[in-house]
Amino acid sequence: MAQLSGKALVAQSGGPTTVINSSLCGVIEASLEADEIDGVYGAHNGVLGVLTEDLFDITKEKSETISGLRRTPSAAAGSCRYKLKSLDENRRDYDRILEVFKAHNIRYFFYIGGNDSMDTADKVAALAAEEGYHLRVMGVPKTIDNDLAETDHTPGYGSEVKYLATTVMESGRDTEALSTFDTCTVVEAMGRNAGWIAAGAAVAHRDDQDAPHLVYVPEIPFSLKRFIKDVKQTHKRLGRVVILASEGLKYASGEYITTQKGALAKDAFGHVQLGGVAETLKSIIETEAGLKCRYNKPGTAQRNAMHFASLTDSDEAYAVGAEAVRKAVAGQSGFMVTIVRESDEPYRSTTGLATLSAVANGEKFLPRDFMNEAGNHITDKCRRYVQPLLTGEVPIRVGGDGLPEYVRFERFAVSPATGRRFQVG
Amino acid sequence: MAQLSGKALVAQSGGPTTVINSSLCGVIEASLEADEIDGVYGAHNGVLGVLTEDLFDITKEKSETISGLRRTPSAAAGSCRYKLKSLDENRRDYDRILEVFKAHNIRYFFYIGGNDSMDTADKVAALAAEEGYHLRVMGVPKTIDNDLAETDHTPGYGSEVKYLATTVMESGRDTEALSTFDTCTVVEAMGRNAGWIAAGAAVAHRDDQDAPHLVYVPEIPFSLKRFIKDVKQTHKRLGRVVILASEGLKYASGEYITTQKGALAKDAFGHVQLGGVAETLKSIIETEAGLKCRYNKPGTAQRNAMHFASLTDSDEAYAVGAEAVRKAVAGQSGFMVTIVRESDEPYRSTTGLATLSAVANGEKFLPRDFMNEAGNHITDKCRRYVQPLLTGEVPIRVGGDGLPEYVRFERFAVSPATGRRFQVG
Repeated sequence: MAQLSGKALVAQSGGPTTVINSSLCGVIEASLEADEIDGVYGAHNGVLGVLTEDLFDITKEKSETISGLRRTPSAAAGSCRYKLKSLDENRRDYDRILEVFKAHNIRYFFYIGGNDSMDTADKVAALAAEEGYHLRVMGVPKTIDNDLAETDHTPGYGSEVKYLATTVMESGRDTEALSTFDTCTVVEAMGRNAGWIAAGAAVAHRDDQDAPHLVYVPEIPFSLKRFIKDVKQTHKRLGRVVILASEGLKYASGEYITTQKGALAKDAFGHVQLGGVAETLKSIIETEAGLKCRYNKPGTAQRNAMHFASLTDSDEAYAVGAEAVRKAVAGQSGFMVTIVRESDEPYRSTTGLATLSAVANGEKFLPRDFMNEAGNHITDKCRRYVQPLLTGEVPIRVGGDGLPEYVRFERFAVSPATGRRFQVG
Repeated sequence: MAQLSGKALVAQSGGPTTVINSSLCGVIEASLEADEIDGVYGAHNGVLGVLTEDLFDITKEKSETISGLRRTPSAAAGSCRYKLKSLDENRRDYDRILEVFKAHNIRYFFYIGGNDSMDTADKVAALAAEEGYHLRVMGVPKTIDNDLAETDHTPGYGSEVKYLATTVMESGRDTEALSTFDTCTVVEAMGRNAGWIAAGAAVAHRDDQDAPHLVYVPEIPFSLKRFIKDVKQTHKRLGRVVILASEGLKYASGEYITTQKGALAKDAFGHVQLGGVAETLKSIIETEAGLKCRYNKPGTAQRNAMHFASLTDSDEAYAVGAEAVRKAVAGQSGFMVTIVRESDEPYRSTTGLATLSAVANGEKFLPRDFMNEAGNHITDKCRRYVQPLLTGEVPIRVGGDGLPEYVRFERFAVSPATGRRFQVG
């Protein structure tokens, strides 16, 4: 494969995770090591930064900032939820991306994101090939949802689950202590269509006393009758109930259980914006089971909890970022780096490759046998899958004020080179 | 002062905290060291356990369990929200408490709790004195709310704030990364009538970029007009807004801002049960400021977050527990051990004593000068008060599964000795 020299551009997309900056750090550090790459730019706010030529020169950042990315949550380069339409529908955006790449001699494009981002990356690669512009495009997986096809799991998932499981465990201790008064607690997990997060965090249930006592995921149709029975039975047995529920619970009809509350609104990708499952279940429990109920909704805190993040997850996030660069420099393009599990005990993983098109717009659901027959808790199979992903803690830096110290890019702007402004949308 | 020999009984009351078990550990370890104390019982679920004679022998617990209390959140002995009425109204309960104490030769009663618990302890002490039963009663302060009179601050507050500040900081990074899309986030802090928690967690705002950008507390009447103006102005300046709000925000009329949603219900103490401030503010922001808004409600997770707890707080919690025993053995009774701040920098504290009656049913509000003139953020004075309480991290034990390992009492039951059952309530 011919050597390709030029600049690298890296961007982050979609919902942040605790370790997406570890992947960014992997991309940056491997790029700085590669002779073929003579500059590393960041796009501010994902593909929006490419379209508007809002680029910054990462090589000018302090080295402590680059290394500090590994202990800093959320997307340091900024993210977005801007979804590019297909080439046919929106050639203008893709042409603009190539225009910006050409103007800055960008020859390596690394896009850290979920399935929508892999779709975008795939289309950019296709257009470059069509136009004969030498460009290597590599995807780096990222999502707390763990719903990407082709990879054993996604960076971001392990830290999400480690934190949420701990939160459920600790909330469970509260309910246990106050079981003469507050006997039910619902914890709401993120997870729009897939139950990976709720099922993962259910590993906090080490024995019968431990929360969560009941777990509900979107893949298994929600039955009001069975739910009330589950709650009543558990309460009778233990004197308390802690329930962990995915935000996207649906009835067998396919309707979200929150729909009646009018909580539906769509985001820019056409995804339904959810919320309110915890309130809905609280209301059901109080009305139908006659039990006092509280709820906790960690919300976006759960995907940024660097203060108790999985070191395994963080290290894998770094590895897939660095590997994307090494593969691109070696001549590969049009792939997402995957994580391949080699063994559970001791846990070992390596990286692999999947075509961007195979990942794009795919969605991987929780296998049915990760949940028990009753559909209200996880199986040992699920536990074996999840647990290795939670081990170790990312060493953070705590300031003299007792709080974590996270870094920020200074974002040294790159002068525009395309000679024109571009209006997004 | 005459030497008093007999057993010690310890109980925990009210809402759990991250470090209430450190106080319990302090009471237990100091009791085990005291020659005058020839047994240590725990009451299961606070005063309810005394009334129902549901006692357990702590000396039979494994030593690892006792020491493990310092790294275990929530109330290991169980808690309750049962409030005893005045002696005149409910002599029966107090008589029963003394009956149980006499039957088991309990001569030392240590009650770990908030102002309601100090009230109960005070009345028990008064009745014992009236009846000539030699009993030494000491209160050990506990509450995340930091609203107890007579003490510089309360054990539980520092850990609550350390965790919530970190959560706000991390949620703020999410909003920062996604500011092209989700531009507002509301984080709901506990705090029924006092703004200590929200104000404390506002120390996460180290510079203008850092969340929280706006902070609202119950002590300052909520103005809808000013709030909308604050949000719009901050959004204009930064492109995003993270708001930290106490659950108990009220209008100048004294009405809770959540009242319109019918979210009010009273707990057993007659306290209004709050919730829904975050949803209310989200709704206001979307409707009145036209900005998309998310909310995070950590709920009970915030008072049990041992995975990132303040070592200063934990050590002080232990110290007040141990000191209560030492003072009681030395002849004191009818006091709560207080924390006395000796200096801010370097931070030094010691313990003191306050009469139970001075603490009972008192409430300490956030000083007005801890908030700025606009009433939408904290002052340096607040920061100087709060920051020393957050330093250090409690060393926890993490299992092979990557999750914290917390202990539980085995609760070896003490045989009933009063010869009768007692119906509570």
